[in-house]
Amino acid sequence: MRGRPALGPSSPACWWELHPGGSAVPRGRAEGGQASGRTPELSGSAVPGGRALGPGGFRAGGRAPGTSGRAGARTQRLGRPERANTRTQRLRRAALGRAGPGPSGAGSVPPGALSPRGCAGAPCVWASRSGAVASKGGTVASGAGAVASKALAVASGTGAVASKALAVASRRLAPRCWWPRCPGPGGRRGLRVQRLPFAPLSPGDLAFFERALPGRASTDPAELEPRNVDWLRSVRGSSQLLLKPQTTAEVSQVLRYCYEKNLAVTPQGGNTGLVGGSVPIFDEIILSTALMNRIISFDKVSGILVCQAGCILEKLNEYVEEQGFTMPLDLGAKGSCHIGGNVATNAGGLRLLRYGSLRGTVLGLEVVLADGSVLDCLTSLRKDNTGYDLKQLFIGSEGTLGVITAVSILCPQKPKAVNLAFLGCQSFPKVLETFRTCRAMLGEILSAFEFMDEKCMELVEKHLKLSNPVTGSPFYVLIETSGSNSTHDEEKLNGFLEQVMTSGLVTDGTVATDDKKIKALWSLRERITEALTHDGCVYKYDISLPVGKLYDLVMDMRARLGQSAKNVVGYGHLGDGNLHLNITSESYSHSLLAAIEPFVYEWTARCHGSISAEHGLGFKKKQFIEYSKPREAVRLMQRFKAMLDPKGILNPYKTLPPAPKSDTH
Amino acid sequence: MRGRPALGPSSPACWWELHPGGSAVPRGRAEGGQASGRTPELSGSAVPGGRALGPGGFRAGGRAPGTSGRAGARTQRLGRPERANTRTQRLRRAALGRAGPGPSGAGSVPPGALSPRGCAGAPCVWASRSGAVASKGGTVASGAGAVASKALAVASGTGAVASKALAVASRRLAPRCWWPRCPGPGGRRGLRVQRLPFAPLSPGDLAFFERALPGRASTDPAELEPRNVDWLRSVRGSSQLLLKPQTTAEVSQVLRYCYEKNLAVTPQGGNTGLVGGSVPIFDEIILSTALMNRIISFDKVSGILVCQAGCILEKLNEYVEEQGFTMPLDLGAKGSCHIGGNVATNAGGLRLLRYGSLRGTVLGLEVVLADGSVLDCLTSLRKDNTGYDLKQLFIGSEGTLGVITAVSILCPQKPKAVNLAFLGCQSFPKVLETFRTCRAMLGEILSAFEFMDEKCMELVEKHLKLSNPVTGSPFYVLIETSGSNSTHDEEKLNGFLEQVMTSGLVTDGTVATDDKKIKALWSLRERITEALTHDGCVYKYDISLPVGKLYDLVMDMRARLGQSAKNVVGYGHLGDGNLHLNITSESYSHSLLAAIEPFVYEWTARCHGSISAEHGLGFKKKQFIEYSKPREAVRLMQRFKAMLDPKGILNPYKTLPPAPKSDTH
Repeated sequence: MRGRPALGPSSPACWWELHPGGSAVPRGRAEGGQASGRTPELSGSAVPGGRALGPGGFRAGGRAPGTSGRAGARTQRLGRPERANTRTQRLRRAALGRAGPGPSGAGSVPPGALSPRGCAGAPCVWASRSGAVASKGGTVASGAGAVASKALAVASGTGAVASKALAVASRRLAPRCWWPRCPGPGGRRGLRVQRLPFAPLSPGDLAFFERALPGRASTDPAELEPRNVDWLRSVRGSSQLLLKPQTTAEVSQVLRYCYEKNLAVTPQGGNTGLVGGSVPIFDEIILSTALMNRIISFDKVSGILVCQAGCILEKLNEYVEEQGFTMPLDLGAKGSCHIGGNVATNAGGLRLLRYGSLRGTVLGLEVVLADGSVLDCLTSLRKDNTGYDLKQLFIGSEGTLGVITAVSILCPQKPKAVNLAFLGCQSFPKVLETFRTCRAMLGEILSAFEFMDEKCMELVEKHLKLSNPVTGSPFYVLIETSGSNSTHDEEKLNGFLEQVMTSGLVTDGTVATDDKKIKALWSLRERITEALTHDGCVYKYDISLPVGKLYDLVMDMRARLGQSAKNVVGYGHLGDGNLHLNITSESYSHSLLAAIEPFVYEWTARCHGSISAEHGLGFKKKQFIEYSKPREAVRLMQRFKAMLDPKGILNPYKTLPPAPKSDTH
Repeated sequence: MRGRPALGPSSPACWWELHPGGSAVPRGRAEGGQASGRTPELSGSAVPGGRALGPGGFRAGGRAPGTSGRAGARTQRLGRPERANTRTQRLRRAALGRAGPGPSGAGSVPPGALSPRGCAGAPCVWASRSGAVASKGGTVASGAGAVASKALAVASGTGAVASKALAVASRRLAPRCWWPRCPGPGGRRGLRVQRLPFAPLSPGDLAFFERALPGRASTDPAELEPRNVDWLRSVRGSSQLLLKPQTTAEVSQVLRYCYEKNLAVTPQGGNTGLVGGSVPIFDEIILSTALMNRIISFDKVSGILVCQAGCILEKLNEYVEEQGFTMPLDLGAKGSCHIGGNVATNAGGLRLLRYGSLRGTVLGLEVVLADGSVLDCLTSLRKDNTGYDLKQLFIGSEGTLGVITAVSILCPQKPKAVNLAFLGCQSFPKVLETFRTCRAMLGEILSAFEFMDEKCMELVEKHLKLSNPVTGSPFYVLIETSGSNSTHDEEKLNGFLEQVMTSGLVTDGTVATDDKKIKALWSLRERITEALTHDGCVYKYDISLPVGKLYDLVMDMRARLGQSAKNVVGYGHLGDGNLHLNITSESYSHSLLAAIEPFVYEWTARCHGSISAEHGLGFKKKQFIEYSKPREAVRLMQRFKAMLDPKGILNPYKTLPPAPKSDTH
């Protein structure tokens, strides 16, 4: 079998995976899931000697000293002049506490205090107007690395207090900070992120939590540090308290107290999300599921697994594979992501085409609501039509409606055979027709149908020196089958190949049945992200579209941008209707970004697509929700939020824009 | 291929399908779906000359004159002495208007006015304490047919007015009627169904609707009659207005008006539900989707179908099959049920094991809320993580939260090959192990795994003279495969059979690959319901349980009832964890029912099972919800209902028990 992306052993270098200015980039199957591209290869090749990254994300030495030198060197090498722009300046002012109308505490952050350890000089800049991580190139960081890092800590007007004593910190909390002004549908512009009037953490609160969770209520800055920043280092909070309950009763006790005291809480699983959904924005208490990692039951007949929310996906997969089953989802971050987080973000991943979404495979949930009450919907039934299916509301709600404490999930049989075909097509309509034929002829054994355009392959060949065995086609498709009988699967695949070659849908291709060749072919698809980062500054978009229109957006964008872009490429999970649109330029260009956005969102909206196929909205994309959902739907979501969490203590500032009545725009 | 159950051409005789007193019973695949057992064979064999039943359910001559004679004769033939009981007497008093505290209008119903056309003398009695249709045997009806029929019209204290002029009728509406006292969890007993204070329909309202839907606002009693009663004739309302919108805008206009005027509305699709969810209880306006039957789009690449809610399932299946796809669900009622109704009831059916539930295959919905606002979640995306998945709340909400007007659904490829195996096992643990082996070895081609005990086979052989090719086993399983290559599928099946025979899991068996034999083997499973009805009075339960405990309930029930029951049998969709528990006795016995209930519900609750696997709660089972859902969940559901429909005008009296504040107990 090919090497699957896994976050388990990784390196500090992967911090920069999505930043084109760096050279240490992932080789994993990019965009495969919630935390794409974080692969074991990264540590072994891009950064020799990189340290292993433990299950807790950044905890196990992920931010070891010495990284900054490497990152800085990389930045220097790729440094390019940056055009100053108003938004960037505003960001910097905000991070330095000069722009916001908050109290002086926010402005008193000492220079460098917000710079992540080992991060100085890195091109770690969030693309201000979009959820996509489009770096501004290396020069920003090389010229003003510390500032850029601070700019990243968008909501961290209070960041400096993180390392100070709790009592002092609580008094210093900034009530307000600034976030880049974002355009929204209907010309709505400008977004200020303001700390909501939650209570600051008091010594009395701390004493309560230490009694409730003895030894598991941490204020240790070293332990809090990696929990305060997201995996991409693009969003940073300043929580002073990390709680690690072990049971649902403890979660309930914690939330009941927080609800009474009006303390805000950020639930956190493996902290592998890509949209800033799992980290605090201000000083929210971090409620980690890390110690809730018990398997409750597994039914070997039905394949139904029941476990606590903090179980790591990869470990669950190992557990059920020993019994002939497999988890119905697979992600690049599987080595550290928690099943509860997967469910809370409705993670997609690599097996969706075959096994469907979590909406069908999750059979039951146990959830603790904002007020501490426990909602027990932890059934293990394939059929249950007694009332409304409440659990669905919590799937994909990113911890804003409740804290998932246990999951019941249906595991399919582990496939015994895997085959791969890599084919060339002369047009996108032929790609679509190939997909249609593939579905018809491979049906029950089809497990992946990926596509990529020739520009992708050019970049992979040029920058990574990979060899494409099938050349001369404007489009390529990668088809994976998995089933219970290798001979049958090969026969089916051969029949399909004969059909598409005879009919002219496919002009050339190669097939792999052994692990080594399968892995080599997968790398042509998986390493596109890496190749792109070598091509310059990358503007990345993760879009769902009706499958027939998937490539129209790429062509329209290419025509629109003309010579102002270096490359406009398209690839992705065609089987899922999930396009990865990537645009590169020699250096960051605000005018290029302005030409891309909001055009890309408006285009997507016109086709009834989704601006977030699988990553969620979290903190970064919540303002763009109305590009994919009608206002009435958003209002209804806000009403659900208000009903289930009237004080708004659960994961504030996430998923939804503020409701109209509290909208400060 | 075997004959699939279809409601299209049927006969009036099928009114009695679930009533053991009658001899006209279905031969279709019983309990397969939402409206099980309604098969074409019924009209052809059980009742020669029976009329075709059109897509509208009862409309096309379904209640033709002359049926009563046949039904009566059947009743006579099977007549048995009935033990009078308090509940029956109460029911009769209620139906006659003597028991309830309602106005004189309710009591002035002329004898016979509530008797369904062609229904007099029929054993059409609802098993008073449960949602299961356990008839009281023939004698009740034969002795007091008209009264029994009236007793059925549980909520029809106002039934008589249905045939009178609208203005008169509106003044006569009974504000209150009685429903049998039902036990609930926690010893809560007694349920009175009281007409909620909705406005009565006025001539002004009627004028508005006639303007809004010219020619499609009907007050014709003949047209209203079949819409006022459910398919089982167990629940009857007295609506005086049937509205047939064609567009979402019209539905919106109707609901906006009803909301303003406080008029209650019952959405209705094909009216094929089995729990009284699709008919009015009092005088609710019937909002039919019958004319909303347009296919909006079909994507031949992705297999995504978008259509209006009133499309008939079978027609949709024919449409997509022409293009190489199949609908992901299949029901006995497919010839008349609407896709909107399928989604509103989260219909299960025959393909769930293979294609999963509608929660995964429904990609988008358009819904009109109680106040007339349109919620457009009609996307056609496999991946979309932008905010909460609102559509899930409407799937399975039985029209109580909104009216589904359009559906987007993912259609799988149509299978090219089907195989069937019928096997004997020596114990239920061996059945379970056979299932486990089957999942492992057939994996991607397994499409059904049904089981039945030897009692079922005895009844099928005794009453229907069917021949069981595999005798001498206490359990039998029926395994269906469907895939894209018949040779491969047969090879897989043979490999599996060799394994289970060699290992002793299976002691005997037969395999079918040709249509005729496949059909014959399926009939052994499908006609169990029919055989049961010949065995006496049947008490039927449709339960979801963890698959390992599926048969424990049957054994416990058998031990509990001892000689007081004639037969206690178990069969069902083992692959879905769906048990059909059936108990027969020579005649209806209240003490036997008391021995079964609430024991069966309490047993199910202890195993975290579901008291309604696939039929929903509707009107009949709503009081039992707390056997399957914790009180906190029910309260939350009630809050959702109150939020989305604060006046409660949408399908009142359904799905949920009254919220505590309005609880009159």
